[in-house]
Amino acid sequence: MVRELQIKVSGQGLTEVTDSVEAVVEDSGLEEGLCTVFIRHTSASLTIQENADPDVQRDLQAWLARLVKEGDSLFTHTIEGPDDMPAHIKSALTSTSLSIPVLGSRLALGTWQGIFVWEHRRHAARRSVVVHVGS
Amino acid sequence: MVRELQIKVSGQGLTEVTDSVEAVVEDSGLEEGLCTVFIRHTSASLTIQENADPDVQRDLQAWLARLVKEGDSLFTHTIEGPDDMPAHIKSALTSTSLSIPVLGSRLALGTWQGIFVWEHRRHAARRSVVVHVGS
Amino acid sequence: MVRELQIKVSGQGLTEVTDSVEAVVEDSGLEEGLCTVFIRHTSASLTIQENADPDVQRDLQAWLARLVKEGDSLFTHTIEGPDDMPAHIKSALTSTSLSIPVLGSRLALGTWQGIFVWEHRRHAARRSVVVHVGS
Repeated sequence: MVRELQIKVSGQGLTEVTDSVEAVVEDSGLEEGLCTVFIRHTSASLTIQENADPDVQRDLQAWLARLVKEGDSLFTHTIEGPDDMPAHIKSALTSTSLSIPVLGSRLALGTWQGIFVWEHRRHAARRSVVVHVGS
Repeated sequence: MVRELQIKVSGQGLTEVTDSVEAVVEDSGLEEGLCTVFIRHTSASLTIQENADPDVQRDLQAWLARLVKEGDSLFTHTIEGPDDMPAHIKSALTSTSLSIPVLGSRLALGTWQGIFVWEHRRHAARRSVVVHVGS
Repeated sequence: MVRELQIKVSGQGLTEVTDSVEAVVEDSGLEEGLCTVFIRHTSASLTIQENADPDVQRDLQAWLARLVKEGDSLFTHTIEGPDDMPAHIKSALTSTSLSIPVLGSRLALGTWQGIFVWEHRRHAARRSVVVHVGS
């Protein structure tokens, strides 16, 4: 089964989508299998991270923003704005697809794991995420 | 087929799990398909790397430790110890899931490829890895 | 279905393989499912990136080359040349496997997404990529 989700993001940072992905798994009726999440963009990505303390998400965002700086004189691709080329690099360093086993009709996530869309551009947007569930 | 593995790690660094994953593929009896490895943690991750020269693993560990420093004044999530927030970042920069095709009843790994759990915390631990094998 | 592709690369940088992967999906005859791309090397990797402006690929390459420097005094694995250990690190920071849902008999890629082999060594080479397509 393949299902597309539209995720609203309000700018740079992480937005949890675990419940939306879990709902697709439930709809599939599959007891055991594999769920794959794919983001259809190159300036936003996916990550599985701790969903307990929101400070973790803030620190991830701050650390990556310092590593991949806007306005780097190295960049030649600047036509789409100062946040665009850093967004491509951040996407390359994180994940475009993630696969999570399904056990007992649920995602086999660890206790503290959540699935997140990681927006790397400054503006609010609607991002397309495609979920596949198979045996 | 979904199978959970418990992997003992002795602290920061890489622990090869190729044989354990290969054993799950053998048990599945599948000749051709896909094997997905998933780690149920956010402070340890997965990587496929060279398993010939152990210096490669040492250099990977040293390089990443220098990039993602403990005690960074940027971090606000410090309650779980100085190695915790770096561990989350290192996990985000490497892999939580990996998928390897199965051919001739074996993982289609390259000659020098091994599958590793990459522990990012300082203490010894038992880590949970879930393996899915499907057609 | 599992199919192996041989990809010629001319040295460091990105080589697009979207059409070759799409051809495997077409051959599979599958209307809906999942396509997984796996590279059988630890000094070259995979990424999904913008395929519109070639400057993006050039900037990705330049940025990563600056982050992971050749001749780093940290490295002990130097026997295979100055570009080898950086190549392993770059592979660990990007992707060894990627999974893309299949919809309407085609890869469900976003408008600007292309699949690339990212060569991290200096010399021209033939790289092995294995593609799995399943339901």
